[in-house]
Amino acid sequence: MPLAHGRHLVSIPGPSVVPDRVLSAMHRAMPNIYEGALVDTSESVLADLPGIALTKGQAFLAIANGHGAWEMALTNTLSRGDKVLVLESGRFAIGWGEMGQVLGLEVEVLASAGPGEPVDPAAVEAKLREDANHEIKAVLIVQVDTASGVWNDIQAIRKAIDAADHPALYMVDCIASLGCMEYRMDDWGADVTVGGSQKGLMVPPGLGLIWASAKALAAHKTAGLRTAYWDWTARMKEGAHYLRYCGTPPIQHIYAMREAIDMIQEEGLENIWARHLVFADTVRAAIDAWSTPNGLQFYVSKPDHRSNSTTSVRTGGIDAARLRAICEKQAGLTLGIGLGDDEGTTFRIGHMGHLNPPMVLGTLATIEASLTAMEAPMAGSGIAAAAKTLAPGLKADQVPAGQVNGFRP
Amino acid sequence: MPLAHGRHLVSIPGPSVVPDRVLSAMHRAMPNIYEGALVDTSESVLADLPGIALTKGQAFLAIANGHGAWEMALTNTLSRGDKVLVLESGRFAIGWGEMGQVLGLEVEVLASAGPGEPVDPAAVEAKLREDANHEIKAVLIVQVDTASGVWNDIQAIRKAIDAADHPALYMVDCIASLGCMEYRMDDWGADVTVGGSQKGLMVPPGLGLIWASAKALAAHKTAGLRTAYWDWTARMKEGAHYLRYCGTPPIQHIYAMREAIDMIQEEGLENIWARHLVFADTVRAAIDAWSTPNGLQFYVSKPDHRSNSTTSVRTGGIDAARLRAICEKQAGLTLGIGLGDDEGTTFRIGHMGHLNPPMVLGTLATIEASLTAMEAPMAGSGIAAAAKTLAPGLKADQVPAGQVNGFRP
Repeated sequence: MPLAHGRHLVSIPGPSVVPDRVLSAMHRAMPNIYEGALVDTSESVLADLPGIALTKGQAFLAIANGHGAWEMALTNTLSRGDKVLVLESGRFAIGWGEMGQVLGLEVEVLASAGPGEPVDPAAVEAKLREDANHEIKAVLIVQVDTASGVWNDIQAIRKAIDAADHPALYMVDCIASLGCMEYRMDDWGADVTVGGSQKGLMVPPGLGLIWASAKALAAHKTAGLRTAYWDWTARMKEGAHYLRYCGTPPIQHIYAMREAIDMIQEEGLENIWARHLVFADTVRAAIDAWSTPNGLQFYVSKPDHRSNSTTSVRTGGIDAARLRAICEKQAGLTLGIGLGDDEGTTFRIGHMGHLNPPMVLGTLATIEASLTAMEAPMAGSGIAAAAKTLAPGLKADQVPAGQVNGFRP
Repeated sequence: MPLAHGRHLVSIPGPSVVPDRVLSAMHRAMPNIYEGALVDTSESVLADLPGIALTKGQAFLAIANGHGAWEMALTNTLSRGDKVLVLESGRFAIGWGEMGQVLGLEVEVLASAGPGEPVDPAAVEAKLREDANHEIKAVLIVQVDTASGVWNDIQAIRKAIDAADHPALYMVDCIASLGCMEYRMDDWGADVTVGGSQKGLMVPPGLGLIWASAKALAAHKTAGLRTAYWDWTARMKEGAHYLRYCGTPPIQHIYAMREAIDMIQEEGLENIWARHLVFADTVRAAIDAWSTPNGLQFYVSKPDHRSNSTTSVRTGGIDAARLRAICEKQAGLTLGIGLGDDEGTTFRIGHMGHLNPPMVLGTLATIEASLTAMEAPMAGSGIAAAAKTLAPGLKADQVPAGQVNGFRP
């Protein structure tokens, strides 16, 4: 007799909860794909996307997931045999580098100090200074590593590249951070930004997003890895709209992305970042309160490098897979899985995108109830600490005394 | 910058959260209304409805809300000038009686001991014994009063009626309890049961439900208040399907009700009642922990008479309307309003229907955060107590050690 009979909640680091507005926008019959509303909507999405990454660069939308967007980034800017430096802070930059190896790139990995540790700008500067002949053509990094929950300081790494006076393209994977955490592509000097539709952008999986700077577009001209499907030049050509997507456009996803961008514009990026900070602090307060030496612990030891969009939690002697199973089967809450060897001893809480206090607090309270049911060690009530931490974010002073109208049924 | 950007949650005592399955069932084009799938579905709904109220009686579905169902109950069984006894335990039986007055019935109200107090079976027995000439033709009661959150013991009142050896029809409003709390129409000797689609039955407002016993159907034959729209005889006639609804059938609602009944049958009534008990105990644990003499207090003083579907909370010196406004505007959570004169000093938490632990606990944690933000007095953390109270309901012993498959992206 599980209690899991209400609306199922996914609190994983993407795909995240899709707003009803976005789902409704996708519920439509096939339109005219040659001209008219669909084409106008598609062009408006492509015109508005640079505002999401805060760039004057060129945006591309591909029918693909994040892995496809990685490939679009690499194939449009690099050639076989080019060397790339992968800045490791978890599973995901590594994965991007592995894709580069398959494509024939020479991949060097600069590891962080250990699991859950961010990329060290000083180490990046030193590594690039060693590369006196500028053999490294691109530096690859993730802003938020979805596996570890590490947040990297993209601006500091840019400064490290500049300090080394190195011309490599700076490519940033923002799949798990766009629409959640501050990112300023132009101000921070990124050359390529990679995104996916299914996390902070609140759209179902199916769209890979790329933003390219002028420098990236210049590199594109001589890139040897270009393929027919991913090719930027073909997608930028004036003419038939189907060129934008190298074939049939992703009609439902275009309408979904339009609606999601509308929602982002209505709320405002800075408000979105502030909202995610409140929720992340709320999640962190719970984990802090639960933490014991033999129980839950932050995966990321440095508080300043914990993401505001996802949090990885080590479970010590607690069976992480069983905790996830109790939450899912008995309570209707899906938590993120620990990746690879961490699966049995780590879980992840996604707190990205379409979220409000009942969702975030409901997630944490359900985890606490499940830990209680497992008789797992907890230093204190995480959910009590979480509710207290969230409270100032409600800005109660902005809400006047209630209106009473004597509602009578 | 409100945090209320996720999926809005209504935790009011109905209309409750409509499951996505039900919403999807309603999303369909107009069908053939003369024969085929719609008619079959309608007939299957009418055939299955007695199983929801646990009766062998006749079910009727009307395009109406609960007030309409009240009128259907009265007009089909009573005549102008008939006397009815209304058993008061809050706003709702009173409202039913007021409707009777408009219809020309002579309405006598037997009040409970005070606000938040249940109907007293001994007082009912005494009142009916006084009525030696059996002028009272019907006794009207609600199982759960949506305003006060009082639960009345329908079986005990039946015994009181029997003890007085009184022949009045026993009419029970189960609008706020069906699909939430145990109700056995035949075993408990009710003659008319009234329901609405929008609470424990998880369907949008728009359907009034009535179940009639053989005794009620017999009374119907001589009822003088019968109207064309509500008339049971017309609706029971063999022949064209549109007679069932006295005109155009509620097509979307028929499909919604079919899906909701499927969900109820899949879960099972006893499991549904048990799930609601766990959630109600969870809500009550929070209120118990919050309670202070100058702050929150249960509206219903007797623990045994608190509903498992909705809970009314007095707020003492705390501005209830402002609390509701903070939850709604700043956090995306709608709480139930206190009715009438109680509006400024009472709020209600609905915990009925399509609910799971993240929803219930998310509601309570958001209330706690809002109370904290208001600097309202609280004796302790209600949400910590709630999570602890819910934990055994997760039945963690039924979940084995987790499966680990080394998921790698």
